[in-house]
Order: sequence, then structure tokens, then C-alpha cells
Amino acid sequence: MNNDMLIRVTRYYRALNRLRSIGLEKVFAHNLADAAGVSAAVVRKDFSQLEIHGQKRGGYEITDLIDRLGTILGKGDEQHVIVVGCGRIGKALMHYAGFEPDGIKIVAGFDNDPIVYSDASQPIPVYPMSRLDEVISALKVNVAIITVPENSATDTYAQLLASGITGIMNFSPVTLKPQRTKDGIIPVVHNINIGLELEQIFYELKFPKS
Amino acid sequence: MNNDMLIRVTRYYRALNRLRSIGLEKVFAHNLADAAGVSAAVVRKDFSQLEIHGQKRGGYEITDLIDRLGTILGKGDEQHVIVVGCGRIGKALMHYAGFEPDGIKIVAGFDNDPIVYSDASQPIPVYPMSRLDEVISALKVNVAIITVPENSATDTYAQLLASGITGIMNFSPVTLKPQRTKDGIIPVVHNINIGLELEQIFYELKFPKS
Repeated sequence: MNNDMLIRVTRYYRALNRLRSIGLEKVFAHNLADAAGVSAAVVRKDFSQLEIHGQKRGGYEITDLIDRLGTILGKGDEQHVIVVGCGRIGKALMHYAGFEPDGIKIVAGFDNDPIVYSDASQPIPVYPMSRLDEVISALKVNVAIITVPENSATDTYAQLLASGITGIMNFSPVTLKPQRTKDGIIPVVHNINIGLELEQIFYELKFPKS
Repeated sequence: MNNDMLIRVTRYYRALNRLRSIGLEKVFAHNLADAAGVSAAVVRKDFSQLEIHGQKRGGYEITDLIDRLGTILGKGDEQHVIVVGCGRIGKALMHYAGFEPDGIKIVAGFDNDPIVYSDASQPIPVYPMSRLDEVISALKVNVAIITVPENSATDTYAQLLASGITGIMNFSPVTLKPQRTKDGIIPVVHNINIGLELEQIFYELKFPKS
């Protein structure tokens, strides 16, 4: 499965969970197409490649599809994540409820500021950075979201890799590269650069593709 | 210029502004390569395609490069953006200082909740949604960040397009499609789906690419 197809299948999976949560039992290719932003023909082609076939009278059973796609996507237990850097963006992510339908749960936050990690009003526990190693192994988590300021992003990244983190979503404007660690692991790194995205939007508006 | 190259050139441009702000005057291909997460050979190839040539003894003048790339990227005045939906993520973006080096400025927020739009402590003015049309034309802004809850994303999107917004960065988990408006404009839409990104990271960790 290539990357584009993976994104589409993940979108189908999310849409199916949402449709089931509002009581639907059956779904048609064009429903999933709408949810994933593609055409119904693409949905049918993807399903045919995954050897998923609809019913005689058209449509698919939602629960059946969720099971099939879940297996393909390697879904199972809840997926745990930590947030490193509990400034405004980090805190917003810790409070964000939108991960739950996808089985993703933020289980801990980390920050250098005693005011932040002593604040009991956070929805999840926040620890000082000095306890990173210990808490990561205790929680057996391997994915982290980096929301530290630009000037500490590189150090934080090195520290996370040394603590056994292998998957990173980076919100700092520094581009982090997936270099092989000394244990021979190549981490999975997604850089989400909000400023860069905005600049691209301005560029595309100024110079529309023909 | 294709999309990948555009992303790289935007990254070079950002890196150059940061290097200049810390007092550097000259830069080498490998400095920009590090900042953009590519090899120095790619930087040289990009510059050769853009007909930008280094100096005899190697390296480039930073101010000169900023001017050249700025022209290519269509930079000029400050670029203004509005934030629609001032919950935690919207507020975090309104307070985010990281846009400034890129010449991007958030000039207004919008929210339905009177407690939010009457709160004078926000760093930028927040208006009720009912004033969207009026404020957008007064501020002459055409790019918006959508940070509303999932169930109002589609309506907000339609409202923004009707108010003349043509560029959208969407943080809601709903995938918004760039459909042609009744004025014949195809908007530029970037969907940033944080849950989806996390799911992809988990998937890539479970099924590494060979």
C-alpha cells in the first residue's frame, strides 16, 4: 500500500467509525468518497485492491468494513502518545478530544517549567523533562508530539530518541530528520510546520497552478 | 516549480531569515541543506535551476539570496490571516509568535461564544461570527485558519468562501475539498489532520517500509 492509499484508507476508517457512532449500519462508496475527499471510483478501486467486495444490492456493512480496514491498518489496542512541551499548543493538544474516536490517547506531558508540571488542573499528568526516560519506560510509549520552542527542538528530539521514542510528530518550525539511532532504528518523523503551510497557501494563491 | 521544490525553497527562505537575524552574512549550500532536511547537492541543483549562482570562493550572500528567493516566492507586504474558532487550538495560534519571521500576521479571530469575543485579554481582536463578512472585507484578508469543532467545519468553510476567503488551512478533522465557488474561484485548501498524522505514524511503525 503506498502512502496516498494509506491516507485514504485511514480516512475511510475514521469516517466509518463516525458513521457507526451516529447509528448507520450500511455505507456506500460515495459516502466514503465524500468523507475522504476522493471520487467513488477511487474508493471502489482501493477496495478491489484490498479484496473487499460490496454486497449484491450495493453498499457495505459498516461493522464488517471497520473490522477489515482495522486489520489492514494494524489497529488493536489504544495507541498512547506523550506531549513534550506544554505551552499553549501542547496544552491545546492535551485537551483535544478529537483523538479518542481514533483510539489515540495522550497519556503524559513533559515540561521544564515547574509552574506547568506542578499544575494539578491539567487533564493528564505533566512531568519535568528530567523524568522523561523513567516515565517513557514505565508507560511503554513510543510516540511523542514535540511542541517545544524552536530553539530546544533539536535537543528534545535527541533526548526522545535516546529514551526509546521511535515515532515523532514535530510541531516546532525546525525540520527534524529521521536519522538512524545508535540502536540502528530509523525513527518515523512527521514535521508539521504551520508557518510553512501558510506560506505555501499564499504562494499558491499568488501563482495558481494552470 | 513543482510542489516539492516549492517546499524546499520556502524552507531555504525561512532559514535565511533566521540566519540573518542572528547576524550571519554568508551561507553555504550545506547550511541550507541542513535547515531544509535535504543534501547540499539538492540545494545546488535547485539554485542552478533558479539561475542563482554562488560566489567564486564559495557560499552565497544572505541578503542577496533573501531578495532573490523572496521575489521568486512572491513575497512583499505582510501576509494577513484570520482564525475562525477561538477554542484552545485557535487561541494557541493567535498567541503563536513563530509566524512573524515569515511575515505572516494573524489580524483577527472569530467565535460564536460571547465570552470569547468579549474577552479583551486576547492579543488580537476577536469578533462574533455574524461579523465575518464585514470584517473580512474591511481587513481585505483572503486566508483563514479553521479551528472550529468538527461538526461546524463544513458550514464555516461555506461561510468563509461566501465571504471571499480563497485560502484555507483547516485543522478540523473534516476533510474540506477545494470546490469551485459560484464566482468561479477554486480555493486553496490545506487540511491538517492531527489525528490522521498520528495514525500514519503508528501505521508506519507497525509496518515499516522495506
